[in-house]
Amino acid sequence: MNLLLLEPAELHPDGTARLAGRRLAHAREVLKAQAGDELRIGILGGSMGTARVVHLDAHELVLAVSAQEPPPPRAGVDLLLAIPRPKQLKRVLPAVASLGVDRLVLVNAARVEKSYFQSHVLTEDSVREYLLQGLEQAKDTQLPELLIRDRFRPFIEDEAPALFASHQKLLPHPPATAPLFGQPRPGPTQRIVLAVGPEGGWVPFEVELLQAAGFLPFSLGPRVLRTEVAIPVLLGQLSAWRMGVSSPG
Amino acid sequence: MNLLLLEPAELHPDGTARLAGRRLAHAREVLKAQAGDELRIGILGGSMGTARVVHLDAHELVLAVSAQEPPPPRAGVDLLLAIPRPKQLKRVLPAVASLGVDRLVLVNAARVEKSYFQSHVLTEDSVREYLLQGLEQAKDTQLPELLIRDRFRPFIEDEAPALFASHQKLLPHPPATAPLFGQPRPGPTQRIVLAVGPEGGWVPFEVELLQAAGFLPFSLGPRVLRTEVAIPVLLGQLSAWRMGVSSPG
Repeated sequence: MNLLLLEPAELHPDGTARLAGRRLAHAREVLKAQAGDELRIGILGGSMGTARVVHLDAHELVLAVSAQEPPPPRAGVDLLLAIPRPKQLKRVLPAVASLGVDRLVLVNAARVEKSYFQSHVLTEDSVREYLLQGLEQAKDTQLPELLIRDRFRPFIEDEAPALFASHQKLLPHPPATAPLFGQPRPGPTQRIVLAVGPEGGWVPFEVELLQAAGFLPFSLGPRVLRTEVAIPVLLGQLSAWRMGVSSPG
Repeated sequence: MNLLLLEPAELHPDGTARLAGRRLAHAREVLKAQAGDELRIGILGGSMGTARVVHLDAHELVLAVSAQEPPPPRAGVDLLLAIPRPKQLKRVLPAVASLGVDRLVLVNAARVEKSYFQSHVLTEDSVREYLLQGLEQAKDTQLPELLIRDRFRPFIEDEAPALFASHQKLLPHPPATAPLFGQPRPGPTQRIVLAVGPEGGWVPFEVELLQAAGFLPFSLGPRVLRTEVAIPVLLGQLSAWRMGVSSPG
């Protein structure tokens, strides 16, 4: 936890906040905070800054908050992600939030096991907790917008066109041979949406729907990467691509 | 497991191999293989291809191997990595191997806890097992060359100059402000080495030694990423950078 996150409602008009539970425990046990110390804090959905420890005991942490700094810039990337197995989802969610993904759509697909929907990991509250861990890690205050959809086709046909109206739509899909960088390069502020399939990939029917919706297939190369590895690789490539990286040397 | 890996010594002169244990269990329980099926296989350190199941029972899997294809290209990247906590190391090692890292140096640093060296995860056999998982995932046969070093300074001063003699040496280091792409771009076949610090970063003494050894500091941006997220982001950026990505559109 590199940033203590406060809900806006926890901030009193006099600029103080009173915390208990997990954040109190972190301040006492990990940060070994004492009265007078300055801690890094962020207001969820808002600015970040520091907070002075006014008082700290076994029951309560009282902070005097000064949050004037903007959060880090967003990735400008949305993720349409076939729901991974719960064990993997627990690792993917903090990674996605730490990378500054703007919007996360967790969607059902033919190769997503039905049982994943029964997992407690996939409840909105649980997903939010894992995303918050990513913000605390990365020092960010902006949660990705979250959608969970249990039907693929209605989502692609009815919701996606409006959600991704002006996005550059990309489909990492191993049978494709074109590299990412062969696609039209997005403008510096244009949003990108990536459709990342389940283990074993999208089925042909899903690929057809995605292509009909404007998603351009490309290949990441011959290596088959786990979702939690593929997503940061893709975000790294996209950040370079967007900057149109060329050589000064 | 997307590829069944065989040790070269397991391949008999007549082209058959007899397997038991974990790979037999995988063939029976996950792949539900039967006599006559074709499985994807690789010879560790060598080529890959297919194998026909000649016989399969509770005790033995007999394969007729045909391995003519080259493994996927390497990343051209070495990693000098301050030893992460064991729980993280278990996730980092398969990721590193799946990404095709050429050489992995696990090195001690001031902010590496002494207890990590007592962990069974850090033994050569255990590290190798986790790297093999990454090869099985990515469909690769080439293990990264592995070095484990418990003293930072002697490694940097005595071993690194010869190991990284013609490498482009890079140091992702948050206090730096230059972006990666401000550095001289490596040639298409030049090896790169990345020095990735521990949680909390390299201490100033270590940064000085790395800079004296020719490592150029740059910043990945304001987000603090976990090691297992930062490494794939860096590899993604480097692959784009090496290609000198520029816009066709």
